[in-house]
Amino acid sequence: MHFAVWAPRPDRVSVRVDGADHPMTLDDGGWWHADVPADVESEYGFLLDDAGAPLPDPRSRRQPDGVHGLSRLYDDGAYAWGDAGWTGRVLPGTAIYELHIGTFTPEGTFDAAIERLDHLVELGVSVVELLPVNAFNGVHNWGYDGVLWYAVHEAYGGPDGYKRFVDACHGRGLAVFQDVVYNHLGPSGNYLPRFAGYLAAAGANTWGASVNLSGPDSEEVRRYIVDNALMWLRDYHVDGLRLDAVHALVDERATHLLEQLAVEVAALEAHVRRPLTLIAESDLNDPRLITPREAGGYGLTGQWSDDFHHALHSLLTGERQGYYYDFGAGVAVLAKVLTRGFFHDGTWSSFRRRPHGRPVDTQRMPAWRLLGYLQNHDQTGNRAVGDRLSATLSPGLLAVGATLVLTSPFTPMLFMGEEWGAGTPWQFFTSHPEPELGVATAEGRKAEFAGHGWDSADVPDPQDPETFLRSKLDWAELDAEPHRSLLDIYRRLLALRLAEPALTDPAFAQVEVSYDEQARWLIVLRGDLRVVCNLAAGEQSVSVPPGEVLFATGAASSTVDGQMVMPAESAAVLRVP
Amino acid sequence: MHFAVWAPRPDRVSVRVDGADHPMTLDDGGWWHADVPADVESEYGFLLDDAGAPLPDPRSRRQPDGVHGLSRLYDDGAYAWGDAGWTGRVLPGTAIYELHIGTFTPEGTFDAAIERLDHLVELGVSVVELLPVNAFNGVHNWGYDGVLWYAVHEAYGGPDGYKRFVDACHGRGLAVFQDVVYNHLGPSGNYLPRFAGYLAAAGANTWGASVNLSGPDSEEVRRYIVDNALMWLRDYHVDGLRLDAVHALVDERATHLLEQLAVEVAALEAHVRRPLTLIAESDLNDPRLITPREAGGYGLTGQWSDDFHHALHSLLTGERQGYYYDFGAGVAVLAKVLTRGFFHDGTWSSFRRRPHGRPVDTQRMPAWRLLGYLQNHDQTGNRAVGDRLSATLSPGLLAVGATLVLTSPFTPMLFMGEEWGAGTPWQFFTSHPEPELGVATAEGRKAEFAGHGWDSADVPDPQDPETFLRSKLDWAELDAEPHRSLLDIYRRLLALRLAEPALTDPAFAQVEVSYDEQARWLIVLRGDLRVVCNLAAGEQSVSVPPGEVLFATGAASSTVDGQMVMPAESAAVLRVP
Repeated sequence: MHFAVWAPRPDRVSVRVDGADHPMTLDDGGWWHADVPADVESEYGFLLDDAGAPLPDPRSRRQPDGVHGLSRLYDDGAYAWGDAGWTGRVLPGTAIYELHIGTFTPEGTFDAAIERLDHLVELGVSVVELLPVNAFNGVHNWGYDGVLWYAVHEAYGGPDGYKRFVDACHGRGLAVFQDVVYNHLGPSGNYLPRFAGYLAAAGANTWGASVNLSGPDSEEVRRYIVDNALMWLRDYHVDGLRLDAVHALVDERATHLLEQLAVEVAALEAHVRRPLTLIAESDLNDPRLITPREAGGYGLTGQWSDDFHHALHSLLTGERQGYYYDFGAGVAVLAKVLTRGFFHDGTWSSFRRRPHGRPVDTQRMPAWRLLGYLQNHDQTGNRAVGDRLSATLSPGLLAVGATLVLTSPFTPMLFMGEEWGAGTPWQFFTSHPEPELGVATAEGRKAEFAGHGWDSADVPDPQDPETFLRSKLDWAELDAEPHRSLLDIYRRLLALRLAEPALTDPAFAQVEVSYDEQARWLIVLRGDLRVVCNLAAGEQSVSVPPGEVLFATGAASSTVDGQMVMPAESAAVLRVP
Repeated sequence: MHFAVWAPRPDRVSVRVDGADHPMTLDDGGWWHADVPADVESEYGFLLDDAGAPLPDPRSRRQPDGVHGLSRLYDDGAYAWGDAGWTGRVLPGTAIYELHIGTFTPEGTFDAAIERLDHLVELGVSVVELLPVNAFNGVHNWGYDGVLWYAVHEAYGGPDGYKRFVDACHGRGLAVFQDVVYNHLGPSGNYLPRFAGYLAAAGANTWGASVNLSGPDSEEVRRYIVDNALMWLRDYHVDGLRLDAVHALVDERATHLLEQLAVEVAALEAHVRRPLTLIAESDLNDPRLITPREAGGYGLTGQWSDDFHHALHSLLTGERQGYYYDFGAGVAVLAKVLTRGFFHDGTWSSFRRRPHGRPVDTQRMPAWRLLGYLQNHDQTGNRAVGDRLSATLSPGLLAVGATLVLTSPFTPMLFMGEEWGAGTPWQFFTSHPEPELGVATAEGRKAEFAGHGWDSADVPDPQDPETFLRSKLDWAELDAEPHRSLLDIYRRLLALRLAEPALTDPAFAQVEVSYDEQARWLIVLRGDLRVVCNLAAGEQSVSVPPGEVLFATGAASSTVDGQMVMPAESAAVLRVP
């Protein structure tokens, strides 16, 4: 077996394989090499400068004993894939389902998740997006504390479990997107700086030290990232990546890492002959990310649209704290987002105390490049108590929210459990084995919300195992009301979206919104369809041309004399000939 | 007189006008206002929180007593401009002359510089580019330590002197570009942070704290910059700006400051009906800066090309230290730069320990957007002893260098005195009145070069007035050899560039280079012209088709039997029918 590791920092490197140490030799590129007999599942690690315990391989594929333990060899060729007939799925026309393996099922494993895939097929989504599955510290965690990006978290089922999951998805016609984090490393188990200059000399973001993307030795760091991206897409048959917080990727090179990634993924796409998708989470409101490279952009496939979320959330809940402030809790901002993509397109952001964003070229940009969602893991879990919208909104308003997302011009995304208005929260949880880190994490969390007026006793302790357990979905809810009815609404909306070409029309120009801010109704025009929403607490009549009611969240009434009677907090979709 | 200042930081602000204090009132935007009777040249300053001495106006137009003193009102309308007939000059076809007011003449003033403008007209350049004239600490300084960007350095002649200079240039058909520094503030006299968040909360560059371009309150900081740029172009009739070290402008907004600047300058251009030019100094090797906005770029007019300089410098001198290393002291790199714009277009930079740059789209990018130079203030003054090329190169190689610059496809730029091979150095000089700062500056300079093997006694003390005086041009040299001959060569080359359309053809595709690395000759083909250079220390024959010799640095010989005999270290330009 050939062992190799990039480690220009130490003067000597040995590899320990099944307990025996073997010195390695350095090449011109800072890589150390050794050929050592090994079994297919040998344990190994690297000794730097003959000191301390052996460290895990930065590119380790398995960490059976966690991120501080030895690495395990993994034979990528051993798994017998069953998805030979799978030809992938392009982003237009899809609906995405965001899912955290640890809390999706009681067992919290890939294999248990496979048992629930039929639910997703029946729901009508076409893509499963997994929160990060890379190796992280402790047993349960959202996944954004990853330190060994090439390993699949062992407690979820490790690399083979992951392959079984992807295979099972493909077998059911579901594509898989993987959430990957390249902007920082977790607070524990990050041994990379011992090997080489993975971290930027200066600069940090909210979560930790910045990754070195353009300083000395950054070429190998970029390869570490890009090779990782290619690994998921090639070796795990994944169909797309969700790139976490790309605004925290500090890159001064003339070709941004995101563009390099898009170029290399496009080359792989031609090779694997499946569509591969790259979606950025970005708070830059910069259309350059999803503009084709031929037009000076980075050429990513899509990006999350927090503006749509914030407009919708603020409208439905009336919340105006923090970054919701500028969204005004009215229809006007939502109308702008639906027709022009970004709300902050150069407009003042009081949250940032500066103007923010840049207009989308709505003549050219297909609307599906923006992802639209009513809830996601962040917007739920980053609330003090991780409460879902179902904890505060009426069933009627939940259904109106679902209607606005699933009839929007954007690629819709749901957060697991949203489709039945899950009664379980989704809270911030960690399981750091180091007591000090656990305390620091918990205190940081409580301090953050104390600053927003929360009593620290009311903020769940992220280290408390109950916080994790409380966040697991309760599948028994599916058989009970009001969950069953909401699920039916989601199913019907997803089916409608597939059936009606107007709903997936990529042209912003085809979207128009009329509304009455005082009366709290709005009509979204999408080609020959009208999405009529009554947000008010009482029934009201809305002017709509006569048409066929295709869908209604409540008691549907056709238009009479150009007026349609809409029950309180209801939505309907009409075809107007 | 209406006084106004942006100062959200203090709780109270007064304006002191001619010794009397007047409280100001705050508006919603963080600006303080007061209407106070004043003379046309009243002295004034701002008292923050009633404490300490009054501070100069961040937008002060005059600082007669230096950057720590009171500001002086200035009446922009009083000057009687004589350049009504001036309609400006576009960048294509121009040649630029870089000039430092303090050392251009013995007197070191605008008025003294005016007396030398005829020399520039006779030389044949068309643009005068001034090193920064903004107010800086002390009497003499390169200008990059500016702290009051709106004031013209008093020792040069202040704002009226500056206007006389620009007026005189325009009267002689010379355009004026102004070097402006927006990436940091000088080490002394920077009172801006007392008023508001001008500096970024985190981050610094080589020269000081980063300017706040995208954090909270950055909108007014950007206005401070853009308004300053517009001031030079509008109020001082300047024709273009040279933007210092734009790679140090840290901007996370979706619209980069440089693009905003280009948009606002384009609007002013339409209003003043003169072409306005923006040229970046950038070490990013990123064509986006000079790509039109319609194609996803920032739309600046041009940028300095250090790659051309480094290739040419390394070829002529054989130097390979520091960033010259990758340029290889051979012809091959120069040939690449001449035909493809950047050498580092994604190639490995051993200086940066990473790949660097991105290719220029040579099918679309006009070559004149890159500035080409054999010397400039930085490449001279940042050497340990500020030695010009004329201190080490033979007159023959100096002439070959001049030929390669002035027949290149790039917009040529000369550094004052280069045209006659000035015997005076151009050294790093400062005149900080604060002893500690003076010592720190001098020690920093010596330490920097000690790291490169210099004896600190050999590195001139920047604070020593002699260092400044030594850097002044000696105009008496013009009448003596070898200066007179070199000046003649520059004049003939600039005249040739004007006379021959092939030399200003913007198409990279029209440039071809053939060379023999061992024999050290090269031929640059530019349309129907051949620029033949023999860099070797001995005479040699070079294969060239028969043609008319338009220019030669030494004894010109026509081609005989397809061979042209080139004297040692010589260049010639032929027209080949």
